[in-house]
Amino acid sequence: MELINQIAAIPLFEGLPPDQLKDLARIVVTKVIKRGQMIFSEGDEGTGFYVLISGRVKIFKLAPDGKEQILHIPVPGEPFGEVPVFAGERFPAYAEALEDSRSLFFPRSAFVSLVKRNPALTLNMMAVLARRLRRFTTMIENLSLKEVPGRLAAHFLYLSERKEGAGELRLDISKNQLASLLGTIPETLSRILARMAKEGLIETVGQRQIRILNRAGLEALAEGGKRLS
Amino acid sequence: MELINQIAAIPLFEGLPPDQLKDLARIVVTKVIKRGQMIFSEGDEGTGFYVLISGRVKIFKLAPDGKEQILHIPVPGEPFGEVPVFAGERFPAYAEALEDSRSLFFPRSAFVSLVKRNPALTLNMMAVLARRLRRFTTMIENLSLKEVPGRLAAHFLYLSERKEGAGELRLDISKNQLASLLGTIPETLSRILARMAKEGLIETVGQRQIRILNRAGLEALAEGGKRLS
Repeated sequence: MELINQIAAIPLFEGLPPDQLKDLARIVVTKVIKRGQMIFSEGDEGTGFYVLISGRVKIFKLAPDGKEQILHIPVPGEPFGEVPVFAGERFPAYAEALEDSRSLFFPRSAFVSLVKRNPALTLNMMAVLARRLRRFTTMIENLSLKEVPGRLAAHFLYLSERKEGAGELRLDISKNQLASLLGTIPETLSRILARMAKEGLIETVGQRQIRILNRAGLEALAEGGKRLS
Repeated sequence: MELINQIAAIPLFEGLPPDQLKDLARIVVTKVIKRGQMIFSEGDEGTGFYVLISGRVKIFKLAPDGKEQILHIPVPGEPFGEVPVFAGERFPAYAEALEDSRSLFFPRSAFVSLVKRNPALTLNMMAVLARRLRRFTTMIENLSLKEVPGRLAAHFLYLSERKEGAGELRLDISKNQLASLLGTIPETLSRILARMAKEGLIETVGQRQIRILNRAGLEALAEGGKRLS
């Protein structure tokens, strides 16, 4: 019963009738993952996808020299590793637990046959894929067309938008991870944070908390219309 | 009738029964687009999506200083502008015709109600979204973790893979566009092409044609295990 409630609370499964939730509960496998454990590697066969229930994981690409580019840090309730369910057979990236985590694992073929029978599930799944595409187009834009200060400003505005425009943001990842997400190194990130604070755009509140002081200034920086001095 | 044949030939609609193809023909609008014409702009309301029939278009992001990052150049038969159909309401990028082109336009709400009734269409659509996600994760990796020579090598290997491993590749875009796709400038691209040719990795056959001479060398370059001298 507890499992069904967990499944019903996942946004991806919103609007599913009780019997379909029961179908999902029948195919799902709970996975307990230790901090630092690899969940899958790029090139592994994608036998199914995951929904994060608790804890934290990172999805990333790896260069031969060990440099990481984080693609995505799902929040609890969000799916990850879903690309091979619908296209190709292998995971296009790595997934590793940043904290002790718990995920639900949905095996591919059982899930696809559920999708085939259920239009609500289908549209939710497409929304997940399309939203991630939207997010990735922004990441490509940031990496290619923006300097690091603009990327960081855009990231703060994105976090704020996700919390309905909140002025105080909790960075739920470390500075190293944030640097990797933005395609830079921790030293550069620290320097830019200090310059943003000096210019009155933000202030650092706690260890991993920042407050937006000048939203218009951040927007101008994110859009490339302004530079940090 | 000709319209139905055109629709039936689109990979996205593979496996649809004739009555569903007729439903699609009923909602579709043919759009003739002149070279240089903007099809949609970032932020425009996404009232539907397109499938390219002939010609060539580019999907791109634009920096305030006018610098472009091409996200995607669909080949005939491929959809574009499909993100707002399933998530959000606005186009996340620009689309412009590189040549006189013809597209089919599928209005959003009519299309969504067809999707709801048709599992085959659904799975095809998800495959399109998931394949594009896979491609974008590679682009993010390339921009963030690879130098430009590695990006170009990866691009040649991708083009070859799309043609079942062909050794001769037609670059169906200009050098300026290729530079924008790889996040660099035309001068750098030309220099790298010359160095690749000098090292015997490729040779230029015609104006827009290259031949792969050393595939293993290109792979090593793409994976970062080798550098151009």
